[in-house]
Amino acid sequence: MHAASATRMLPPGSTVAILGGGQLGRMLAIAATKLGFKCRVYADGDDTPAFDVAVGTRGQFDDAERIRAFAQGADVLTYEFENIPHAAVSVLDDLVDIRPSTHVLAIAQDRLSEKQFMVDNGIAVPRFFAVDGPDSLAAGMAALGGDAILKTRRFGYDGKGQCRMTPDTDPAFAWAEIGQQPAIVEQCVPFSCEVSVLLVRDRTGAVHPYDVPRNVHRDGILRRSTVPSGLPTALEGAAVDIATRVAKSLNYIGLLAVEFFVVRDDQDPQAGQLLVNEIAPRVHNSGHWTMDACEADQFENHIRAICGWPIAPIHRLCDVEMTNLIGDEIDTWMALAAEPMARLHVYGKGEARPGRKMGHVNRLLTHTKLPD
Amino acid sequence: MHAASATRMLPPGSTVAILGGGQLGRMLAIAATKLGFKCRVYADGDDTPAFDVAVGTRGQFDDAERIRAFAQGADVLTYEFENIPHAAVSVLDDLVDIRPSTHVLAIAQDRLSEKQFMVDNGIAVPRFFAVDGPDSLAAGMAALGGDAILKTRRFGYDGKGQCRMTPDTDPAFAWAEIGQQPAIVEQCVPFSCEVSVLLVRDRTGAVHPYDVPRNVHRDGILRRSTVPSGLPTALEGAAVDIATRVAKSLNYIGLLAVEFFVVRDDQDPQAGQLLVNEIAPRVHNSGHWTMDACEADQFENHIRAICGWPIAPIHRLCDVEMTNLIGDEIDTWMALAAEPMARLHVYGKGEARPGRKMGHVNRLLTHTKLPD
Repeated sequence: MHAASATRMLPPGSTVAILGGGQLGRMLAIAATKLGFKCRVYADGDDTPAFDVAVGTRGQFDDAERIRAFAQGADVLTYEFENIPHAAVSVLDDLVDIRPSTHVLAIAQDRLSEKQFMVDNGIAVPRFFAVDGPDSLAAGMAALGGDAILKTRRFGYDGKGQCRMTPDTDPAFAWAEIGQQPAIVEQCVPFSCEVSVLLVRDRTGAVHPYDVPRNVHRDGILRRSTVPSGLPTALEGAAVDIATRVAKSLNYIGLLAVEFFVVRDDQDPQAGQLLVNEIAPRVHNSGHWTMDACEADQFENHIRAICGWPIAPIHRLCDVEMTNLIGDEIDTWMALAAEPMARLHVYGKGEARPGRKMGHVNRLLTHTKLPD
Repeated sequence: MHAASATRMLPPGSTVAILGGGQLGRMLAIAATKLGFKCRVYADGDDTPAFDVAVGTRGQFDDAERIRAFAQGADVLTYEFENIPHAAVSVLDDLVDIRPSTHVLAIAQDRLSEKQFMVDNGIAVPRFFAVDGPDSLAAGMAALGGDAILKTRRFGYDGKGQCRMTPDTDPAFAWAEIGQQPAIVEQCVPFSCEVSVLLVRDRTGAVHPYDVPRNVHRDGILRRSTVPSGLPTALEGAAVDIATRVAKSLNYIGLLAVEFFVVRDDQDPQAGQLLVNEIAPRVHNSGHWTMDACEADQFENHIRAICGWPIAPIHRLCDVEMTNLIGDEIDTWMALAAEPMARLHVYGKGEARPGRKMGHVNRLLTHTKLPD
């Protein structure tokens, strides 16, 4: 990192480089543009909706020469997903400020490192064991003694690279299912709900947590986030405290998402156990409701943080429910466009393949001022 | 116009073409992108901030071949300023739906046609006379019998192409000052304030008026817009009624801005006279406060209207003051970035020349929900 520029505010006109050209990169680029920053985006693949709103460079993430040319002259570099080869990013450390840091990226992109980081910091996670073949998988399953999930250490998202296990599952079969890659096997947590903490940590180290959404997944993909979560305030506060510890331990700068399993206590509705599921060192799908329900959204505040700016107010103005539009659900756009309390966001992707996030809709559930 | 597509809703993925590459085109392109539209922008000159967020084509507005190639294949075409040669746009009528229509453009880009349109529709305007040389200017001044403003009929904006006149001003001098172009001479109205109406008229003909801002100009350039305006409700209602009549008479589709002089009655604080100053057939600087103070802003609703979509709610959520950042005022960005209730917008222009609009800031004056 460039020590000299670590704490100065980048002026408008500075260049923000973004690795990854999907919807998160697109919404980051729009937010940066509104503050007067120039944006460039690097992405592989053909469908790169972020290229619609920024200067795009298409290239592979292992093409060191191309990615260095892309980063050259940028004032700050960030990323929209953590599954970028660490090697591809760390070669840029001498060229540009990378925020969040490559240290954060290294931890967050490896499930085993991430879990170990939590354990080292005294943060509860589901029980897990490292897996490097059928034998260690069988041993892990035996130790867990129940249903479990096998997850590749790297490059998993939206439920990809995972295999559900029962005590009867053949370890060799499951190992083959995930492509014989280094993995972890993790207990199936009997959670009552999932929540996430979205916080921004600025250049001074101050932490700004958004309100906590409750998240519902389907087929491994986020389906809906609702705010407020309905959790007891004390539990929400405990989740924020954990996420804050994570951010501080990582000396994090930017928007951090921490996903939790919540295991409620049948005897005490105010009690419950929080287990960290995973962290995302970036803007996050479960924070898209901030775009229409908060004074300043996660995208603007991520850009502010990485550019050394103070954070804009995170206060929530109304209750809200965010629903992802997945695959052909985008075909409901006409009804959503006509629904008065629905704020529609469409990502401009080419083809509505099954499981693909095509857009989202934020439904404002309360009005601060009602229509006349 | 393509009759067949006049009322259908354009689906996401359709292409919106925008003439003009300044900040209005930029904010229109961002709004269109959020709804999943593809954007292309045509502009002359070098400094085209809209090109940062859309596919840009640089060309002259009188280059019929280039502008036709630009419009070819677009689903709808709109414009960010009315000073586009009518001939350049009307040649596109057979290629693409143009909204607002070329008929509207023809009226709004000629001060004489615009005034005559108001008179024909029984709408009060400052007294005026057509000017085509020193003699008609002298005659007009004599008839007005006091201070006046000479304004070119075409291509004026931000106070350009204008000359203030007293009864002592030499008509030949003033005529030379404005470049000996067809003009009008208009009485100086002793107004107590200026307001504007920003309304959206949708494909069904329904009119949606935003709340009315009070506008303060300096050196012919909008300085500040404040909402609420402080005008009596009846006067605001009368202004909205007039703007609605204008929109209906023009069979207008999109965001229309109508600027008014308000002449108050010293004897009756509830009374006053409204004179239309000018209309703008496009999104308007005095509507920039809608970006942070309304559920849906003028840019999204202009795009919705021209794409045949229903209008999103226009309700204002809080009191607000919009201040333009002109020339080197943009150098205050650091303080503005740190001001909690200030929402900063920077246009990404190259050089902060005097009189140039570099950005704006919306200050939220009331909270709907206060910070804890």
